[in-house]
Amino acid sequence: MRIVNLTKEATENILENLLKRSPNNYGDFEGSVAEIVANVRKNKDEAIFEYSKKFDGADINADNILVTEEEIKEAYEKVDETLLNVMRKALVNIRSYHEKQKQNSWIATEDNGAILGQKVTPLQRVGVYVPGGKAVYPSSVLMNIVPAKVAGVDEIIMTTPPGRDGKVNPSTLVAAKEAGADKIYKVGGAQAIAALAFGTESIPKVDKIVGPGNIYVALAKKAVFGYVSIDSIAGPSEILVLADETANARYVAADLLSQAEHDEMASAILVTTSQKLAEEVSKEVDGFVAELSRKEIIQKSLDQFGYILVADDMETAVATANEIAPEHLEIITVNPFETMTKIRNAGAIFLGEYSSEPLGDYFAGPNHVLPTNGTAKFFSPLGVDAFVKKSSIISYSREALQPIYRDIVQFAECEQLTAHANSIRVRFEDKKN
Amino acid sequence: MRIVNLTKEATENILENLLKRSPNNYGDFEGSVAEIVANVRKNKDEAIFEYSKKFDGADINADNILVTEEEIKEAYEKVDETLLNVMRKALVNIRSYHEKQKQNSWIATEDNGAILGQKVTPLQRVGVYVPGGKAVYPSSVLMNIVPAKVAGVDEIIMTTPPGRDGKVNPSTLVAAKEAGADKIYKVGGAQAIAALAFGTESIPKVDKIVGPGNIYVALAKKAVFGYVSIDSIAGPSEILVLADETANARYVAADLLSQAEHDEMASAILVTTSQKLAEEVSKEVDGFVAELSRKEIIQKSLDQFGYILVADDMETAVATANEIAPEHLEIITVNPFETMTKIRNAGAIFLGEYSSEPLGDYFAGPNHVLPTNGTAKFFSPLGVDAFVKKSSIISYSREALQPIYRDIVQFAECEQLTAHANSIRVRFEDKKN
Repeated sequence: MRIVNLTKEATENILENLLKRSPNNYGDFEGSVAEIVANVRKNKDEAIFEYSKKFDGADINADNILVTEEEIKEAYEKVDETLLNVMRKALVNIRSYHEKQKQNSWIATEDNGAILGQKVTPLQRVGVYVPGGKAVYPSSVLMNIVPAKVAGVDEIIMTTPPGRDGKVNPSTLVAAKEAGADKIYKVGGAQAIAALAFGTESIPKVDKIVGPGNIYVALAKKAVFGYVSIDSIAGPSEILVLADETANARYVAADLLSQAEHDEMASAILVTTSQKLAEEVSKEVDGFVAELSRKEIIQKSLDQFGYILVADDMETAVATANEIAPEHLEIITVNPFETMTKIRNAGAIFLGEYSSEPLGDYFAGPNHVLPTNGTAKFFSPLGVDAFVKKSSIISYSREALQPIYRDIVQFAECEQLTAHANSIRVRFEDKKN
Repeated sequence: MRIVNLTKEATENILENLLKRSPNNYGDFEGSVAEIVANVRKNKDEAIFEYSKKFDGADINADNILVTEEEIKEAYEKVDETLLNVMRKALVNIRSYHEKQKQNSWIATEDNGAILGQKVTPLQRVGVYVPGGKAVYPSSVLMNIVPAKVAGVDEIIMTTPPGRDGKVNPSTLVAAKEAGADKIYKVGGAQAIAALAFGTESIPKVDKIVGPGNIYVALAKKAVFGYVSIDSIAGPSEILVLADETANARYVAADLLSQAEHDEMASAILVTTSQKLAEEVSKEVDGFVAELSRKEIIQKSLDQFGYILVADDMETAVATANEIAPEHLEIITVNPFETMTKIRNAGAIFLGEYSSEPLGDYFAGPNHVLPTNGTAKFFSPLGVDAFVKKSSIISYSREALQPIYRDIVQFAECEQLTAHANSIRVRFEDKKN
C-alpha cells in the first residue's frame, strides 16, 4: 500500500482524487428516471407492474405485490438459525442506542401567561428501500427500520425488487420482520421510489423515503424530494484510521481492508505520525490481501483510493482527518478520547484498538448509515431525528401580549405588512381607531 | 369570503387546489440555472461580477464585494431608531428560544468498558441568502442568522444582491450586524448560491446554505444539494385557523388576512364547527379588506386559496387541519391545549385568542422559517438542529468485545464480507489460524 508524506499539496491532491468518487454521470440517467417517475405518478400500479416485468423479469400484479405472512414464514424456514440469533442480539443493541436519541417535546412558561415550546411528532408513514441483486445485507435492513420504529412511526413500508421467480431474498424478509416492517412490497428501482412518493392503487404514499440504492434509485429520490422527505444520497464507503506509534499495525491493516472490500470506489486511508507504523501497516496489508476472498475488489480500491499518509505531528494528522471528513474514523492513539475532542467531521468515531469498524456495522448499536464522501461536514448518521418533525408552540395571554403589542405593530409596519399590524392592533384598539 | 361545507369531497378538492401553488414551471428555468452554477464553479469571481452587472446593473468587483465597516456604520445612521430598538427586543426572545433547542453530546457507559455516544458539533461555515428587491424583511435576516449563531457556527457569511448603486438596503445590513453575521457579500441570485457552494477568490465555500429566494435561488439550492447542505425550499405562506363557537370573529378575520397579504399565492383557511362564526368571519373579512393597503393582493389570494370550512364536529375539523398540514396553525377553541394534542402536522401552532400569528413572525422567539405547502408532514421549523451535525461514538474494551466477537464474525460472513470478519478475528485469534 502506498506511503505518502503529508504535505499541504499531497492533501489537496488526495482530496481532489477522493471527490472523483462522486458519480459524475448523473446526467446520463436523469432523463430515463424522470420518465419512470412521471409514468408511475400517472399510471400507478399499471406502470410499476410493467417495469417489474421489464427490469426484474418478474410477473407482479395487485394480488402478489404484497409479501404475504406465508412467504415470511417460508423465509424463516430458509434462514440459518445462527444468523437469526445474531440478528436478534444486534437488534437489542441497535434499539437500545436509538432509544437514547429520542427527544422530548418541551414547553417553557413565564409568569405573565406566555408559553413557548416545541412539539416532537413522529412521521406517520415511512418507506424503506432495500436493494435486491446478489449482495444481500440484512444488517442494512435493521439499520434503516429500527430508528423509524423507535421514533414511533405509525407504519413502515418496505419495498425491494423481486427475483425472476417473484420472490424476495429470505434474509431480507426475516430482517424486515424482526426489525418491525409493517408491509413489504415487491417493487424496486426508480419505480419503487415514485410509487412511495405519489402512491398507487397498491402502495400507499409515504412521508419520507430512506435506504440505499443504485443510481436510478438515488436520482429518483432526488427527483421526488419536496413531495416527500428523503435521507441523504449515499456514496461509496470509506475509513480513515488516525494512529500514532502505539497502534498495532496488524489491527490497523485489517481494519483498512474491511472497508476496501466494499467496492472498487471505497477508500481506506491511514494517517499516522509514525513512519515505522506506516511501513508495518503497508506490509501487513499486502499479507492480508493475498488471503482474502474479495482480493480483486480490495486491490482496485487500494490502488485508486488507498493511502498511508505520514504526518509531521498529530495536529496536522487531525486537520487532515477533519478535511477528509470520513464516514468511519478510527482513532488509535495513546489517548483516543483526547484526540477525539479535536475531531469535527466524521460520521462515526471508533476509539481505541478494540473498536474495530465492523463492530459498528453490525453490533454495537449506533447506525451504520453514515454520511460519505466528505458530507460528514454537514450531514449526520441516520437516526431517530430523521423520523420525527417538530412544531413550534406559541401561547400568549392578553397580559403577556399587551406590553409588547406596539412593538410588533411597529415591526410589521416597517416591513409594510399592514394586515400583520392590524391583526395585533385589533385585539387592543377600538373598532373605530 | 367563501363558506364551504366540509365534506370528504370538498377536502379533496381543496387539497388539490392548494397543491397547485407549488411552482410547476421549474423546468423552464433549470437550464439557465445550471448554466449559471457551472459558470460560477469554473470562472468564480469573474462570473459573479458579470452576473451582478447583467442582473443587478451593479458594478461589483473584488474590492467592493465585501460590505465594509463603514457601509455598516452608514446603514445604522439611516435606520429608524424605533425599528432598531424593536429588533433588539425581538432578538432577545429569538435567542432565548433557540438556546432551549440546543442538544448536548452524550455518552452511555457500561461496566465492561463499552462506551457509546453521540457528539454534536456545529457546522464550521454557513451561508445565509437574503433576497433584495423592494420588499425588505429584516425579521427574516434575524430568523435565519440567530439559530446558526446559537448553534455555535464559527463563521456566518451573508449574501444579498446589491442595488444599481452597489449598495445594500440599510435595514438588511443592520439586522445582519445585530444578529451576528461575520461577513456580508454583495451578490444575489443563482450566482450567489453557486459561489457559496463552491467558493470563489472572494467568497469562501460554506457547509450549508439557508434563506429564502426566488425560483432561480431555489433551483440553484437544489442543484448544489449534496455538495453542501441546504434548508428546505420555501413555498407561499399559509395560515389555518381552527376555531369553535367561542372564537372572536373579528380576531379570526384579521389573522386570516395577515397571511393573505403576503402574496397572491398565499392561503388563508378557517376550519370551524360553528356556522355562526363562519358567517361572522366572512363579513369581518370583507370589512377589513376594504381598509387594508394591500387589498389587491389579499383579494386575489382569498379568491384563489381562501376558504371558510364548516365541519360537523371538531374531530373532522382536526383531521382536515392535519391533512392540510399548514405552515401556521391557530387554535382558538374552548380548550386549545387539549385540541393541540390531536395535531400532528403544522409548522407553528398558536394557541388561544391572543396568540395572533404575527406575534410569531416578529417577536415571540420561535423561528418564522417554517415548512409550507403540506411539507409540515415531514419538515420542521428552521432551528439550531439545522446548524449542527452528529457523529456516533463507539469505544469498546477488549473485555467488551471478547464475548461477542464471534457474533460479529458470523454476521459479516453471512453477508460474505470476509475482510470485515477478518478485522474482528485478528484481534482474538492466532496469526496462523
